[in-house]
Amino acid sequence: MGVKLGILGLGTVGTGTVQLLQNNGFRHPLLQSIEIYRVGVRSLDKSRAVTLPENVLTTDLEAIVIDPEVDIVVEVMGGLEPARSLILKAIQNGKHVVTANKAAISRFGDEIFSAANQAGVYVMLEAAVGGGIPVIQPLKQSLSVNRIHTITGIVNGTTNYILSRMQTEGSNFSDVLPDAQRLGYAEADPTADVDGLDAADKIAILASLAFGGRIKLEDVYCEGIRQVSKTDIAYAEKLGFVIKLLAIANRITLSSPSLRLAPLTSSLSPISVRVHPTLVPKTHPLASINGVNNAILIEGEPIGQVMLFGPGAGAGATASAVSSDILNLVAALQNSTKAPNPLLQCGHQDYCQIVPMTELVTRFYARFLTKDQPGVIGKLGTCFGDHGVSLESVVQTGFQGELAEIVVVTHDVREGDFRQALTEIHTFAAVDSIPSLLRVL
Amino acid sequence: MGVKLGILGLGTVGTGTVQLLQNNGFRHPLLQSIEIYRVGVRSLDKSRAVTLPENVLTTDLEAIVIDPEVDIVVEVMGGLEPARSLILKAIQNGKHVVTANKAAISRFGDEIFSAANQAGVYVMLEAAVGGGIPVIQPLKQSLSVNRIHTITGIVNGTTNYILSRMQTEGSNFSDVLPDAQRLGYAEADPTADVDGLDAADKIAILASLAFGGRIKLEDVYCEGIRQVSKTDIAYAEKLGFVIKLLAIANRITLSSPSLRLAPLTSSLSPISVRVHPTLVPKTHPLASINGVNNAILIEGEPIGQVMLFGPGAGAGATASAVSSDILNLVAALQNSTKAPNPLLQCGHQDYCQIVPMTELVTRFYARFLTKDQPGVIGKLGTCFGDHGVSLESVVQTGFQGELAEIVVVTHDVREGDFRQALTEIHTFAAVDSIPSLLRVL
Repeated sequence: MGVKLGILGLGTVGTGTVQLLQNNGFRHPLLQSIEIYRVGVRSLDKSRAVTLPENVLTTDLEAIVIDPEVDIVVEVMGGLEPARSLILKAIQNGKHVVTANKAAISRFGDEIFSAANQAGVYVMLEAAVGGGIPVIQPLKQSLSVNRIHTITGIVNGTTNYILSRMQTEGSNFSDVLPDAQRLGYAEADPTADVDGLDAADKIAILASLAFGGRIKLEDVYCEGIRQVSKTDIAYAEKLGFVIKLLAIANRITLSSPSLRLAPLTSSLSPISVRVHPTLVPKTHPLASINGVNNAILIEGEPIGQVMLFGPGAGAGATASAVSSDILNLVAALQNSTKAPNPLLQCGHQDYCQIVPMTELVTRFYARFLTKDQPGVIGKLGTCFGDHGVSLESVVQTGFQGELAEIVVVTHDVREGDFRQALTEIHTFAAVDSIPSLLRVL
Repeated sequence: MGVKLGILGLGTVGTGTVQLLQNNGFRHPLLQSIEIYRVGVRSLDKSRAVTLPENVLTTDLEAIVIDPEVDIVVEVMGGLEPARSLILKAIQNGKHVVTANKAAISRFGDEIFSAANQAGVYVMLEAAVGGGIPVIQPLKQSLSVNRIHTITGIVNGTTNYILSRMQTEGSNFSDVLPDAQRLGYAEADPTADVDGLDAADKIAILASLAFGGRIKLEDVYCEGIRQVSKTDIAYAEKLGFVIKLLAIANRITLSSPSLRLAPLTSSLSPISVRVHPTLVPKTHPLASINGVNNAILIEGEPIGQVMLFGPGAGAGATASAVSSDILNLVAALQNSTKAPNPLLQCGHQDYCQIVPMTELVTRFYARFLTKDQPGVIGKLGTCFGDHGVSLESVVQTGFQGELAEIVVVTHDVREGDFRQALTEIHTFAAVDSIPSLLRVL
């Protein structure tokens, strides 16, 4: 039994998702039961990076969300309208929904989830936050046994790229922005990113999941990075900090008793949700997240700190998240027929083919103790060369007593070739011993 | 309808799990449908950190796994036997199983999963690898739409702690080990950890999930950290590397045609699974994982790199993983009654209570431009003090033209108090402007 998808939008994310689903070999076998049934686009004439049968592409998006054949609607068109209306209509027509639309979910989540609960369908949104990083599902499932007290995220790649470059180059915001735009890391109108609005959408969604309540977007405090100067980055550096645009949601112990509206336990205390540039101690796990990467640090009881790190955007990463939501829905649909849930089950029964270590291709570090004679480095180099082992560096690092110490780092080599060279080197009269042999990543 | 647990073992992990389940407020509401029905222990007389009704504790573990009332058996006793036999008997009696036992799963996974598939029950093992880090479920679900080509993990906290200290202190393995044992980071018999056997168990499990095939433990190449010397750590440092015990599983393109047993595509190429000390470039995400923390880097197509980081051991972290497996099973059992899966659904409908920014407690960084007069720093300090704002540092960092530049970093303060102080400071004749105001994590 196939599961039929109606995909709304064939931009970057939609194209990436179609490519992943069409090229489904050696991925989760459940993906093979998925049929790309309809894809809604603005124009049929545009040239596309994917090939789809003629009857699949349509400009009638409304028809997709009411089509009785469609099981799952995948909304990857973005924007507020008509995305919101199409999602709601899909739900009313009993479709499960997968969306990557953080803007729509953070604004209309109340309406959308209420409708979904009433209709008994799922709305999945892994791609809305953190690109390909699995964060929505861990928050909903694995981590939800914890009492989460803080979520701290670098959830906007554009601003993290700009701040990383300001940090590295000592440049000002206004110098880096045009370059980021030229390279495609920032939009022509950069407002949503640099003023923190995109991060605000995302932390509202994360906070809602972590704290089990809805969040009004207007309650999220939001400050962007336009006012961060190279002067402050330099002072922060001296004080032991880097400056990051953080999206933070945490439980707050109130200091003014007047604000204690309801009798509060520490676990029911209210939360603060905010986006602002922040000085982060260099030793903090988020301090080393640079460039367009995202990372989300989740702190709770009893787990302590967990950090999820990865590509925050891009066609492939986002397609991975969208497809994982589709996979979850396919499993849930299959599971409702009483078969065991294939995502919880152990599906494989065959053994992997494991290669012997001699076939491994890796770099090596080796330390030799040799007699202090001229020509030893040359002999080592020649022997490695004879066995096809290419060297990155050979350094005589010093002496241990009478013996010279030589450190060798190779390029990627076949381990078997390297071992054969070592066997030969062991026979050299000038070589005393090889005290260390380590692989290099 | 309650779900009844039979827990085998009440050591560190068992106790942590019972504590989490007993203290279930403000966690996932589904936890409230769980009943701790039986807990199997070696002795009834031992004093315990948890209180359980008298009829719950029993020394008859066999009776638990065959009890028709028990829905889920939670095996947290560890070791190979009787853990293996009890797991198998539980499965034969139709129980779902949650286990934290990497040693048993890596050795007897074939037998255990075959039995589970035959009996139509689930065997869950999130706690077996990476402590509290969600890694098993993301591999099974979110990330399984990818073609994974490499998993690289720091999955043993003991060896990472020892190597981190050798790196920081310039000590030898033999100097650090006794100290790690004294502090409880290494066992009296450290063999399983320092010789890489524990990491081998874990990478066998991860590789099996990532590559969709079973792994024979004897195929995993394994080298520990006993031979890593401070000399090599120092040379590695100079070359731009740190030394880590890595557990690696990756697809290999074979260089010898003789080894190509089956027609191979690049996606079906065989894998290499290994544990060995490795020089890791300092810029690599795994290089900065220090102490007893674990991290697992997953690389695949199309996602790129994702890294999951967190506490690799400890009662709380492991209890979080065990409980998340229990939660998944409870959801699956409930879902089989045709209700929507509560772990996929949006369960909450109320709004979170959000505090205003004035109530936030945080540190601040502020930069002032002032007239170059004596006493300005004193006036700033006094004003902050009057508003209950405690300062960590006040530094006159230099001049901008005629104006002196002063940088202030506060301790944790109530934002409202800090803002009031700033309002007052703005009125000082000596203060020209406050060009920067940033929060500090």
